[in-house]
Amino acid sequence: MAYTTNTVSSAAGPDPKSLLAKERATNAWDPVKMHYFLEGSAEKAEMIKSLTQQMERDPILAADYNYYDLTKEQQRQLTAEKISRVARYIEVESFQDFNRRLSLIGVFDPQVSTRIGVNLGLFISCLRGNGTFDQLQYWALGKNTAYIRGIYGCFAMTELAHGSNVMGLETTATFDRETDEFVINTPHIGATKWWIGGAAHSATHSTVYARLIVDGEDYGVKTFVVPLRDSNHDLTPGVTVGDIGAKMGRDGIDNGWIQFSSVRIPRYFMLQKFCKVSREGDVVLPPLEQLSYSALLGGRVMMVLDSYRMIARMSTIALRYAIGRRQFKSQAAEESEEDNVPETQLLDYPLHQRRLLPFLAAAYVVSAGALKVERTIEETLNELDDAVDSNDEDGILKSIDAMKSLFIDSGALKATCTWLAAETIDQCRQACGGHGYSSYNGFGKAYNDWVVQCTWEGDNNVLGINIGKPIVKHVLNVIDNGKVVKGSSAFLTHTKDFIGANAKKTYLNSLADVGDLKKLIKAIEVAIIRLTYEASETQRKTSFDYIGAEMVNITKLKAHHYLLEEYLRRVEEFDDASLKPYLILLGKLYGASIVLDKFSGIFLTFNVISTELVGKLSAEYIPKLLAEIRPHTVAFTDSFQQSDMIINSAIGKFDGDIYENYFSIVKAQNPPRAHKAPYSAALEAMLNRPSLDERDRFDKTHEAAETLSK
Amino acid sequence: MAYTTNTVSSAAGPDPKSLLAKERATNAWDPVKMHYFLEGSAEKAEMIKSLTQQMERDPILAADYNYYDLTKEQQRQLTAEKISRVARYIEVESFQDFNRRLSLIGVFDPQVSTRIGVNLGLFISCLRGNGTFDQLQYWALGKNTAYIRGIYGCFAMTELAHGSNVMGLETTATFDRETDEFVINTPHIGATKWWIGGAAHSATHSTVYARLIVDGEDYGVKTFVVPLRDSNHDLTPGVTVGDIGAKMGRDGIDNGWIQFSSVRIPRYFMLQKFCKVSREGDVVLPPLEQLSYSALLGGRVMMVLDSYRMIARMSTIALRYAIGRRQFKSQAAEESEEDNVPETQLLDYPLHQRRLLPFLAAAYVVSAGALKVERTIEETLNELDDAVDSNDEDGILKSIDAMKSLFIDSGALKATCTWLAAETIDQCRQACGGHGYSSYNGFGKAYNDWVVQCTWEGDNNVLGINIGKPIVKHVLNVIDNGKVVKGSSAFLTHTKDFIGANAKKTYLNSLADVGDLKKLIKAIEVAIIRLTYEASETQRKTSFDYIGAEMVNITKLKAHHYLLEEYLRRVEEFDDASLKPYLILLGKLYGASIVLDKFSGIFLTFNVISTELVGKLSAEYIPKLLAEIRPHTVAFTDSFQQSDMIINSAIGKFDGDIYENYFSIVKAQNPPRAHKAPYSAALEAMLNRPSLDERDRFDKTHEAAETLSK
Repeated sequence: MAYTTNTVSSAAGPDPKSLLAKERATNAWDPVKMHYFLEGSAEKAEMIKSLTQQMERDPILAADYNYYDLTKEQQRQLTAEKISRVARYIEVESFQDFNRRLSLIGVFDPQVSTRIGVNLGLFISCLRGNGTFDQLQYWALGKNTAYIRGIYGCFAMTELAHGSNVMGLETTATFDRETDEFVINTPHIGATKWWIGGAAHSATHSTVYARLIVDGEDYGVKTFVVPLRDSNHDLTPGVTVGDIGAKMGRDGIDNGWIQFSSVRIPRYFMLQKFCKVSREGDVVLPPLEQLSYSALLGGRVMMVLDSYRMIARMSTIALRYAIGRRQFKSQAAEESEEDNVPETQLLDYPLHQRRLLPFLAAAYVVSAGALKVERTIEETLNELDDAVDSNDEDGILKSIDAMKSLFIDSGALKATCTWLAAETIDQCRQACGGHGYSSYNGFGKAYNDWVVQCTWEGDNNVLGINIGKPIVKHVLNVIDNGKVVKGSSAFLTHTKDFIGANAKKTYLNSLADVGDLKKLIKAIEVAIIRLTYEASETQRKTSFDYIGAEMVNITKLKAHHYLLEEYLRRVEEFDDASLKPYLILLGKLYGASIVLDKFSGIFLTFNVISTELVGKLSAEYIPKLLAEIRPHTVAFTDSFQQSDMIINSAIGKFDGDIYENYFSIVKAQNPPRAHKAPYSAALEAMLNRPSLDERDRFDKTHEAAETLSK
Repeated sequence: MAYTTNTVSSAAGPDPKSLLAKERATNAWDPVKMHYFLEGSAEKAEMIKSLTQQMERDPILAADYNYYDLTKEQQRQLTAEKISRVARYIEVESFQDFNRRLSLIGVFDPQVSTRIGVNLGLFISCLRGNGTFDQLQYWALGKNTAYIRGIYGCFAMTELAHGSNVMGLETTATFDRETDEFVINTPHIGATKWWIGGAAHSATHSTVYARLIVDGEDYGVKTFVVPLRDSNHDLTPGVTVGDIGAKMGRDGIDNGWIQFSSVRIPRYFMLQKFCKVSREGDVVLPPLEQLSYSALLGGRVMMVLDSYRMIARMSTIALRYAIGRRQFKSQAAEESEEDNVPETQLLDYPLHQRRLLPFLAAAYVVSAGALKVERTIEETLNELDDAVDSNDEDGILKSIDAMKSLFIDSGALKATCTWLAAETIDQCRQACGGHGYSSYNGFGKAYNDWVVQCTWEGDNNVLGINIGKPIVKHVLNVIDNGKVVKGSSAFLTHTKDFIGANAKKTYLNSLADVGDLKKLIKAIEVAIIRLTYEASETQRKTSFDYIGAEMVNITKLKAHHYLLEEYLRRVEEFDDASLKPYLILLGKLYGASIVLDKFSGIFLTFNVISTELVGKLSAEYIPKLLAEIRPHTVAFTDSFQQSDMIINSAIGKFDGDIYENYFSIVKAQNPPRAHKAPYSAALEAMLNRPSLDERDRFDKTHEAAETLSK
């Protein structure tokens, strides 16, 4: 063997690259085809690839390893430069393509998509959701805000002392009849607008959530457009803006705080699609308060798509590493009679498969749900807009129903999928051992940037309660009034079939049952029904506050039900029959591991499954599924079609040459020539300091003691 | 009400401070007394406080909020300055006090304690574990390394391609009989020493794990002292050192990589307590390979103590916030007939109690286990040293037994407690909503610094397998050979009483059983026995590789068993009877939530508990315990006696004045005067850019189209 190739080796080193290549050579399918499934269609998938190509060649937008070495200040600046670059694309492409572009940027540089999102997503969605058609036109298009030109909007909802409880916000907008203006004011420190993305440096305007006060009467929280900076980018009078400073992640976003000190805006800066104040101060209130919160829905939907892409990216890194990395010898290798049996590839250990492959399955299953909820919101908002524009009251009411349903589904998915993605990042990092901790392998920044998704735009636990509550109420209604539930929770109508005398009847009775995805989905329904019923009974005796933990679990199970159901539907209608068996495998793994195994306490407590069957599930069924999926790991991950720029991980690169890639990137980022630290003088002074006696001027020596004791 | 006090408020703001003060006023005990329990004795607790006082007044060591705004380079430098300062303390205090000091530093600036730890902990432990008495004296004391003077040591074990599998390391140490030297060489990129703390900038010497090669024969991995830098801090010939660069956390540590290119060291630089090479090249091997790995044990034990302190710090922050923060109204408040009922304190929601209070309990329970395992290692290593020094073979063998037992206990605790602490940080952050994401509240850096504890010095999953395996083997031996198991796993001897015909007999049969800590501890034994037995049967049919997931769970349960057992013992022997009932409450909560509820799948699958009882546990018992603990939350957290400097969190300060503290810290770190970003020009240029038509030189206008189409 020739060891002097690129560098001198005096013995053969590891060869992870060939391990990956070998597995790739036997791919059972063309990853390009599978990608069509993941993105919903060949056309969409090709567009995703074309956008990726454009961005990985773009001198400003492309991610690189230097990204992981930037300070907060550098991240802020780079993010601004990227936004400026993205702005040129938005001027020349369709809204849909631009949305896809943002979704992709969200995978390799989420701070950029979020910082844009506060303007295009939140600010404009708020205009759309709460402003009249003309108001939307004026601010979004007339002023070029939609092209990130002229105006940069931010979304001033949360305050220092109020986040989730939007109704409790304390900023005031007091109507001044005299001047036909609203006076926006921050009454005290607790009402300081807080966490406002874009406020610190970028935003010129803000949609402000404030209590409408007319003649001393408080009409609740409404929305107003309030300029923050003039066209010279100087703060307008009465506006104080500050930088929130360092964060766990997403330092590229200039989150800020805002205090308004009697800031005056014309009356027509109020967004008045649903709520109006006349010149005389007469107030017209909206038909349904929730209508004005639709601004957040789009974000939630986007976060389900983000979850799919992030889970895909992270599991690709960890799985490529697990194929290239050898560690210890398996018992079989140990006992082998052959000489020099190499150490075992990480992914050949059943435990490692169990730790990682469920996340691979999750990427596939979540993708299906993400696409569905994305379709749904588009349809629903369009219908609502049409109904409002044509003043069609029945249409509005119908849309409100659809919105409520979307609120449940998107909220359950947002909470469940963002948590799942956070867990994926964490577990994938741990599965890469120490190398997972290096910034250049991508997990650290991914995690730090990601986890805020579990908190913002509806804290996951609060969402869990808000979504669990209507489900519990449905069940109470079914029990008490024989209500028929519609929509995605329709199965609750049959609550009585699974409780009381039937509460002890197990639903899954064999591994064949577990392997039947339709039955498994039905089993989730049974678990939800029984858990909800039990919670509803507790609620009768206490209050909703006492079933918080149960409501969060109900919400999670509801989301898994939605995801698996849609996944199965998509697989069944998929036009490439050769891929279906592989897709079904992943669906089964998802159901068995991420649902049944993870919630086994609930499935057992409520007798949906027997203890014996759970034992088999864990000891036999899941390991068998994992073994079947194992050979196709590379094909499954390659099917995400995420290029090296998107992956942006030294150990996760396509070629699998883990060590060469990682080492060369570490060296490039930290040239070894600089082997003395800038602060080396301090270190050396410490090491070379005189002895303690000398530094104590010999005042504590034996001699000194004698002299001073005389 | 006067709103013009320190600032002008135009309405009454929130008053979190008084909420905390009110609860503190009714403390049921003196936190100082409870602190004695946590630290093991009044004397130790007072020493902890005295050390804390010293450090919070120290101009260099004290943490502050600026800490959260430092770049990697600044962190590196500050850490070096802190080490230089700490070095002055070590010269004048006892080894035990210094260890306590390090443990405390580990709470508020873990990168400092770790960077010191690579020298004092790993380098010197390696000398102690592998060197002769004279070698230890020479390097550690003669050269002043123990005082961080003269020599700075690092610990070059892991390599780029080998971490957990120490036996597989590939760096070579080849004996050159001619010159009586060893030649240390890195044969290929995979054998590059990697992640070596202190190597990049600080270390002058390294203990290197390398394969001993004599006359072509490979004697396995041994340890050698290899100088890296001369007294001028320049790299010695053949030594290449590089900076590992950016990490997820602990950027203050100068982790590096090292390549040795035929570096020559005298034969006597080999550490030869157990393994010797004579002048002629004759090799004497150690009695037990594991003896040479004792260097890592001390670190593992320290990490259990770290876990206690970190869990205490994080839960204090989240619980103080949960008392001062009001959010929404509870159902009772909503339905109240009084006017102006305020929003409800977060911690008065049962769900919030359930999310946080188990971690409070964990701090208490883990503290007991940490102290025990700390005592055990001290005793064991001393006995081993005595036996080796006096050449007492029986003593050595006895010590080896004790070491094996310590290996199991410390490994199980290390894995379980570091995971638990990581979960605590994450969950406490989430429980503070958006504010948890601000760097100034402490969670972000705490998490990023912490999680590597789950990976280094024994990856938690690998530990899970390594500790689970001997337990499974014990059970196989009990079944097959009627073996009597000794030590902390003695209960396995009774395996047969709980399997076979008795496998279906539930052990916990009522809430009274659950509330009896002795029974609960016994129930954990039953769960371990049945799970292990099942795993051992699977293993017979397959191999150990197929029961990895089970072994990890066995390890976790084993650790919880150890912790609860020691906790109960400590509570029983504690001399302040008035505090015992409160301590018992926490023990019950730990057992019910962190053990039974979290592992309910296992307890149910193996019939340790009935489905009915688990239902009650979750719906009745845990909520009741939480409600009993709730009023004492402030007293429990104050009992940790962690001052504001140690907590270092704006929303977690002692006075509970959440909003004022947080706002003033954010403002101080990011003065709002600087309201235009340094990069504002780029932003403004984007917003004020000419129209697309103009930038396209009007080449795509209707007029141009007409002209060009002619």
